[in-house]
Amino acid sequence: MKPYTFERSDALFERAKKVVPGGIYGHQNPILLTRGAFPSFFARGEGSHIWDVDGNEYIDYMCSYGPIVLGHRHPKVDEAARRQAELGNCFNAPAPIWVELAEHLVSITPFADWTVFAQNGSDVCTWAIELARHATGRPKIAMCQGAYHGTHAWCTPLPAGVTREDRANIAYFRYNDLESLRRVIDENPGQIAGVILSPFRHDAGHDQELPAEGFLSGVRALCDRNGAVFILDDVRAGFRLHMGGSGELFGVRPDLATYCKAIANGYPLAACLGRESLKRAAEEVFFTGSYFTSAVPMAASLACLRELEAGGGIERMRALGEKFRAGLLAQARAARLEVTCTGPPAIPYMTFKEDHGRHDRAKLFAGECARNGVYIAPRHNWFLSAAHTEQDIERTLEVTAQAFESVRWRFGW
Amino acid sequence: MKPYTFERSDALFERAKKVVPGGIYGHQNPILLTRGAFPSFFARGEGSHIWDVDGNEYIDYMCSYGPIVLGHRHPKVDEAARRQAELGNCFNAPAPIWVELAEHLVSITPFADWTVFAQNGSDVCTWAIELARHATGRPKIAMCQGAYHGTHAWCTPLPAGVTREDRANIAYFRYNDLESLRRVIDENPGQIAGVILSPFRHDAGHDQELPAEGFLSGVRALCDRNGAVFILDDVRAGFRLHMGGSGELFGVRPDLATYCKAIANGYPLAACLGRESLKRAAEEVFFTGSYFTSAVPMAASLACLRELEAGGGIERMRALGEKFRAGLLAQARAARLEVTCTGPPAIPYMTFKEDHGRHDRAKLFAGECARNGVYIAPRHNWFLSAAHTEQDIERTLEVTAQAFESVRWRFGW
Repeated sequence: MKPYTFERSDALFERAKKVVPGGIYGHQNPILLTRGAFPSFFARGEGSHIWDVDGNEYIDYMCSYGPIVLGHRHPKVDEAARRQAELGNCFNAPAPIWVELAEHLVSITPFADWTVFAQNGSDVCTWAIELARHATGRPKIAMCQGAYHGTHAWCTPLPAGVTREDRANIAYFRYNDLESLRRVIDENPGQIAGVILSPFRHDAGHDQELPAEGFLSGVRALCDRNGAVFILDDVRAGFRLHMGGSGELFGVRPDLATYCKAIANGYPLAACLGRESLKRAAEEVFFTGSYFTSAVPMAASLACLRELEAGGGIERMRALGEKFRAGLLAQARAARLEVTCTGPPAIPYMTFKEDHGRHDRAKLFAGECARNGVYIAPRHNWFLSAAHTEQDIERTLEVTAQAFESVRWRFGW
Repeated sequence: MKPYTFERSDALFERAKKVVPGGIYGHQNPILLTRGAFPSFFARGEGSHIWDVDGNEYIDYMCSYGPIVLGHRHPKVDEAARRQAELGNCFNAPAPIWVELAEHLVSITPFADWTVFAQNGSDVCTWAIELARHATGRPKIAMCQGAYHGTHAWCTPLPAGVTREDRANIAYFRYNDLESLRRVIDENPGQIAGVILSPFRHDAGHDQELPAEGFLSGVRALCDRNGAVFILDDVRAGFRLHMGGSGELFGVRPDLATYCKAIANGYPLAACLGRESLKRAAEEVFFTGSYFTSAVPMAASLACLRELEAGGGIERMRALGEKFRAGLLAQARAARLEVTCTGPPAIPYMTFKEDHGRHDRAKLFAGECARNGVYIAPRHNWFLSAAHTEQDIERTLEVTAQAFESVRWRFGW
């Protein structure tokens, strides 16, 4: 097969640069991908496959950076969305699906008694820390150094336009280092309103880290002992690892959990679920938005969550992710390349040890994959979906075998 | 006709209260509406009419608090959205509509050279102030006392969970009081990065105020003289008053303008448009979100903006709004009630002078309207859409005549 080229993508990107700062901003901006080695614009998707504007087809392991958990254009999700759209989407007040989805989310989430809805992960993470502040009457939030909780000023990874005051009430500890959290609490006596962290460490560009034995239960105990709210940021991992929230997989129950990404298979929805003890305070932390009653994404979400459960999607993603990882590790060994595969199988990531954090080999590897029909990102974890098949993984491993060869050839022994 | 009752709405609200803080939060929470006098849940919409879950039909003058500018389920908008949805919505990178919509927005907006997209008004207003800070290297933002620019901590109207530091860099002036802005600038020499304000004053619960002669041009001149970025928050009014942005109607051109609401007839989209001089800085202020590439709302937006222009929607909303206002004023006079009708005709609002800001008459009036098939809010401006008809206005005025009678009856001479 002839490697792909990207003429139409590149032409659209040239047009985009004229009317959009950087052409494409955010996590698709040029600092994260090697322009020219990846497509910049997509035309369509179907299940686990996507097509760019040049007609090139890919097996998609980014899943739109998470949202696509059942595959693109899942018939049951799209049908539920279409049925709601025929009635309407955005009203002066919610549609009945507001109640139905809230009841369903609470019913599948062991720790939770209530939910609120929004459109974005940033929105629910910020609302959660404000709720922790309001409920405790304390100002400070403890978060992990380097963790991603969204684009808002208190946590954005690229702080252009952020003032010192935006972060005056954030204290930093290290993931998997309980002692560092204890120190933060000791140094801010009676000041820590909440602790926010992701169920496992998935900072962009770094190897992922699963929670060490005792870490999450230690965070839980420290929160309890000090009256701080335990916020689990499950935006990236939620509903890909466990239907009850990723805390269930790792044996911990937070006070608040934030969701987005996989909650509605790409329809714009986010949620923050919480315990009864925080419900009264939650009524008082203002939360709304132009589209906050939107019923179509809620209908999509209910269909998505039911299908994930009925179709055994979680187990399927885990099993296929393990097959993918085992194949990559075997190929790397055969090519005598040292790689590190980290994270849960459904949210895998691979780095080259010899890159020493610079991603040169990873970029070449991902670019070679892209030009041969497998879309992965070099500086961000990947995502399986329930639409991936054994055949997808087999075809992918043919492509990655070649890509390892290219790395070997380019960077030498 | 028998006044409406709300059994099913009320039953759903009871269920909602168990799993959602307050049942319904945000601008539909019970502090803003009299529970029992309004429906809490909607079943469907069509054009200028909506139906609640009890089957009651309303002429809709809230338009989902702004987004519905062409009427519910507009065929051209929904068709454009459906066509994009058949290809897919949310990809690893944008779809071509990203470029087409950006080009269109820039082409219809005289001052603007570029745009970014998001999902919510709060997101673009916050990003705009961060861009102003980054571009100028200054920390402070001047905003009007009581103005609404979203739910984020620097400006939320109900600051539970907000810390003092969140507002340390916000300075306040008064709308239509140029001297108060001059004072803010003088008191913060070289510190004001930007000035954010809406094109006219539309603070919830207050009479609206159009810009006084010379006010907006005075703000423009003060920004120019002091190197501050002029941010026009056109989230609420944009594309309802002028296709080139509300600044065009009032004769002022900002450096940045934020849009949401009417931009896509209810599909979740927001945008910030800006001048060339800010484009390089804009590349550096991080902005993304789980759904930032979503193509369906962009396709809906392009169809919405084209239809608004082709169908003369702006002029239609203005003319019908004037007819509505003239009718209300004549009825109030006839009932010997003193009312104040404020704001542009397409975004009208009416208060009772004798309410002295307490909204008792307004709540009774709005409740009587609701129970007879006209949906307006007592503490928030209203919205016309291009789907409203002369017949809608005539039927509405029959209902409001009765509602004025009820106010007269209940509150006496």
